Formats: sequence, C-alpha cells, structure tokens
Amino acid sequence: MKATAIANANIALVKYWGKRNKELILPFNSSISMTCDGLHTKTTVDFSGSYGKDTVLINDEELKKDEKNIMAHIERIRQMAGITDKAKIISESNFPVAAGLASSASGLAALTLAASKAAGLNLNEKELTILSRLGSGSASRSIPEGFVEWHHGEKEDGSDSFAESIASKSHWPEFRMLACIVSEARKPVGSRAGMAQTVDNCPYYEGWLKTVNDDIAAVKKGIAERNFTLVGSTAEKNTLKMHALMMTTTPAIIYWIPQTLEIMHSVMLWREEGLESYFTIDGGPQVKVICLQKDEKEILSRLSSLDCVIRAINCPPGGGAQLSNSHLF
Amino acid sequence: MKATAIANANIALVKYWGKRNKELILPFNSSISMTCDGLHTKTTVDFSGSYGKDTVLINDEELKKDEKNIMAHIERIRQMAGITDKAKIISESNFPVAAGLASSASGLAALTLAASKAAGLNLNEKELTILSRLGSGSASRSIPEGFVEWHHGEKEDGSDSFAESIASKSHWPEFRMLACIVSEARKPVGSRAGMAQTVDNCPYYEGWLKTVNDDIAAVKKGIAERNFTLVGSTAEKNTLKMHALMMTTTPAIIYWIPQTLEIMHSVMLWREEGLESYFTIDGGPQVKVICLQKDEKEILSRLSSLDCVIRAINCPPGGGAQLSNSHLF
Repeated sequence: MKATAIANANIALVKYWGKRNKELILPFNSSISMTCDGLHTKTTVDFSGSYGKDTVLINDEELKKDEKNIMAHIERIRQMAGITDKAKIISESNFPVAAGLASSASGLAALTLAASKAAGLNLNEKELTILSRLGSGSASRSIPEGFVEWHHGEKEDGSDSFAESIASKSHWPEFRMLACIVSEARKPVGSRAGMAQTVDNCPYYEGWLKTVNDDIAAVKKGIAERNFTLVGSTAEKNTLKMHALMMTTTPAIIYWIPQTLEIMHSVMLWREEGLESYFTIDGGPQVKVICLQKDEKEILSRLSSLDCVIRAINCPPGGGAQLSNSHLF
Repeated sequence: MKATAIANANIALVKYWGKRNKELILPFNSSISMTCDGLHTKTTVDFSGSYGKDTVLINDEELKKDEKNIMAHIERIRQMAGITDKAKIISESNFPVAAGLASSASGLAALTLAASKAAGLNLNEKELTILSRLGSGSASRSIPEGFVEWHHGEKEDGSDSFAESIASKSHWPEFRMLACIVSEARKPVGSRAGMAQTVDNCPYYEGWLKTVNDDIAAVKKGIAERNFTLVGSTAEKNTLKMHALMMTTTPAIIYWIPQTLEIMHSVMLWREEGLESYFTIDGGPQVKVICLQKDEKEILSRLSSLDCVIRAINCPPGGGAQLSNSHLF
C-alpha cells in the first residue's frame, strides 16, 4: 500500500486551452506534447500508515492552493480501489512549481501512477492517462513517452479522451526543448480559471478551434518526417495563438513578463541570422526554446548571455511515467 | 502657392486594422481616436519655386522610406488642382517619427491641408479627411478636433469613409493620454504591410470584425457620458485584441518590447491598487497611458520612476488641423 512514481513534465507543441466538460476535464481540442527528460516529479504515496488525515508535502511545503485538487484526486483513486485509508504523500520536483513549467502535469501524473499502484489498482497506460486527466488535463500527456497526442475525444463520458505516444523518445533524439527559467514566482492566474473565462468570453476562441486541427496535422506530419522547420514554426505560431486568446479574454490574462519578450525577440533574431530555433510558452512567463542538438551549445551559450535567463534546462525527448523502488520516505 | 499647416497626432481608442480596399484605403471597421494636443507635425508646402523635382525633408532628413507614399500624395493633390509644379516640402514633428506615435497620421494630415491649400484647393473638413485618408488611413482622424470617429463607409468609391468630430476638445478636457516613449528606434514592420498580412491569413480577424462594433458603441457611449471606466476599459481591451491579431498573423508581428510589457503590467497593478488608468498601444513599442487630469501628476511620477520610460508626453484632447502663417522656409 505504498508506491513511488516518477513522471516527466511535458511541453506542448500544440496547446490545450479550454474545456468542453469541466468536471471530466474534456478538452475542446486535441494537443501534442513532448515528454521532457530533465524536468521530473517524484511522488511517494502511502496508504499503509493508518494516518488520521491525508497529508501532502510538495517540495517540503504544505501547499494549500494545490491541495484541493490533489485531495480530490486521491479520493477519486481511493473510491476506484474501494479503500478508505488516509494517505501520506510526498512529492518533489527538480524545477520551480506553478510557474509555467508544467509542474501540475508531472505532479498529477506521478501522483496518479503512485497512488493507483499503492491503492492496489493495476491500470494500463491508456487507463492511467484518463485517470491523470481527471486530476489535471495536461497530466495525461506526462504518462506516455516521447511525443504524445492527447485526443480530445467525442464521448460524453470521456472514455475516448486519452493520451498516447505518437513517436518514441528514440524516434527523434536530436529534438530539444531548452526550458528557460526567467522567474521563479508563482503565476498570478492559474490555468484552470483562465481557460474557463476564455471559453466564456474570448472573441477569438472560435478562430482557435477552427484552425487548431491544422496545427495538429502539421506537427504530427513534422514529427513523423523529423521536419524540424515544420514542427518548430507550427509550435511557435500555435503558442502565439494561445497567448492571444489569453490576452483577449476578460479579464485579460497576460502571462508574459519583460524577460519573456526579450527571449522571444532574441529567438526570432537568431533565426533570421540562420540559427534555427523557435519558442513556445505555457501558462507562465518561462520560455522554452525549441532547437536541434547540433545547435544546443550555441543557443545555450547565447541564452546564458541574456541577463534575464536565471537557468536553462536542456530537455531531450523523455521516457514515460514509471514506478520506482526508492521511496521518498 | 505656398502654405503651412499644423496637425496633431491622434491616438485611437478603437483601432483601425485592415483594409477592405488597399488603393482607396477603405477600412473594414470604423475607429475612434482622440486628437492629441502636444504631439504635432508642422508642414510647409511650396509649389511656387519652379523646382526641378519634388523634395521632402522630414525632421531635417530626406526619408527615403516614406517618400514614395508622400510623393504619391503630392501627385494626387496636384492632379486634383490641375497643376504640374514640383514641390518643396519641409515637415517637422515634435516627437519621434515612425515609432508608433502616429507620426504618419499627423504628417499626412498636415501635408494634405498645406498642399491642398498651396495648390489652390479650398476643401472643407469632410473633404480634407477623405483626401488625408488616401495618404494614410489614420491621417483622416488628425483633421477634426477632440474625439473623432472615422466611418468605415459602405461605398466602393470611398465617399462615405470620412472622419468627423464626435465630441469637441472642450467636451471632456480632463481626459488624458500620457504618451510614453520607451524606444526611439523605427519600427521593424510598417503598419501597412502588417495589416494586409492580417487580412490575408490571421485566424482571428473574423472575431475582430464581429466584435469591433461593440467596442465602437461602448466608446461612443462612454465619451458622450464622460464615463472614464467604460472608455478606458474598452480601449484597453480593444488594443489587446489588435495586438493579438498582429501576433497571430504569419509572419508574426510583435511590436511589444520588454519595456512595453513593463508599463502594461504597471498600469494593471496601479489600477488594482485603485489608481484608475488604462493602456493603449499602436503599431510600435510605445505605450499611451489613459487617465484623468486628477491622476496625471501621480501617474507621471510613477512612470518617471520606471527605468524604461525615456519621456512621457502629456496630451489633453487637442484641436483639429489648421493653417499657419509662419512658414518653415
């Protein structure tokens, strides 16, 4: 009744923004991501201690804000397994939490795998992605390896809204995400509230839904053919489309800070100079620079010469979530 | 055959972005602006010197880039007047040119008034706005005083696409635009090329057109009632909608620089703290902060404490374009 799992964060190349069903976390559009070697969360769940209440420690802190979501997820897993034991949960990420580096994705994926195992469930990968999705939509993409598609699905019960690997991590080992940390502050607006407001009032959401399938098709083709220009340029365009949704939502959600924009302009300039790279940005100020292995040294050196970059983490395509025998307690 | 005119720049509260007719510069949507006291261009046009060719001096420089447009405009006015004399044109603005402070608006408006007068035409205000529009769309709004609406019009010949004052400068003298200069560099992409690409390929342009009339109605109501919150919040939302169009156009047009975003976030923070102000941004990095006279001192002081603001120009509602007897040469 105790298990530990490790899951990598994932960075979307085609973003997820907006739910057609808030309770089951069913998205309006499919999304594609890369599971990132180098940005991981390790989580140990123990139901065996006869604990008086559930406790959650994330990076040595009891985080009130995330607790509600995590507690609901633990309760969901307990009910599936038919147990009532309270849990002790300890979770550690090797990167800043809640600042737009997909910490909720790796966190909820690791929690789902560890808790379901500790509760006695033996779920296959597809089932794990669906269960992770119920905790945090993008967590579904942190279960499979390499390049991953999360299908929006059509069914009302969500049974066809799962994630699967569309290319293994060894399909394109030269692909890189350089995750640049420009701020370690927690983001002011969580993604969940923001995307509900977008669906509710953003005048451009219809335009997003009309064109996102083209982005999905282009990125899938690009990954299959290892066409870096196609994947990179589509991912950059898609990220601008998502942030344009955010900033035209009422109230406006502007995740970018000056440092974000400095990196964006730098990447566009480097590209004009012939150093091919692209940017992608999630619900936070951090910028992920997309490049190929042959250019990573040069780009990391240029990034480190920008004052605004606190740290850049070099992520190749990574493996899927897995169990570990080395528990955190 | 020599005349001098002064025209103020105008800053749009509801933006103009996209032409339904490129030759006649007919816009898809109506726009509303404030003519800005404090940002002006003075232009002298002389057809009487038997010059061998047209010469244009803008702020003491022969500007190749703008010449084509200006030369075509001079030729248009010559043809209307039935003259063939070459012109000497000297133009001076009291603010940086081509960096997103509406220099083409005040410049083409002053040129239109001075050149039409020097060529012997006596046009009324409506005719001047239509003629200015042919030189640069937003220049039409720099002819009338105070708060101005440029009607998109319906007719193919453009005869109903003119600008007119919807409120005089004395209707709301407490209204302020604080034009913050954060960079004096010329902008990398001119508005004209950018908006053609948006119409051509931006997935959100339909959403813009569907909602811009609501912004027009809200700002007109707000001006009529001197409802600052309504005007300011609608203008800020509208500017975010326009920049979202720009950045989702292919190739992406990102006029914001880190300093732009720093002021945007500052204004939003001040507002949360109870100091009511809003931002608007045109095709360039500068930010115009919208406030009321009662708060201008406090906001100017806060702006000057931001490292990124080179200079802030305080603009109340200004008068329309007018002739002057003091020539530049």
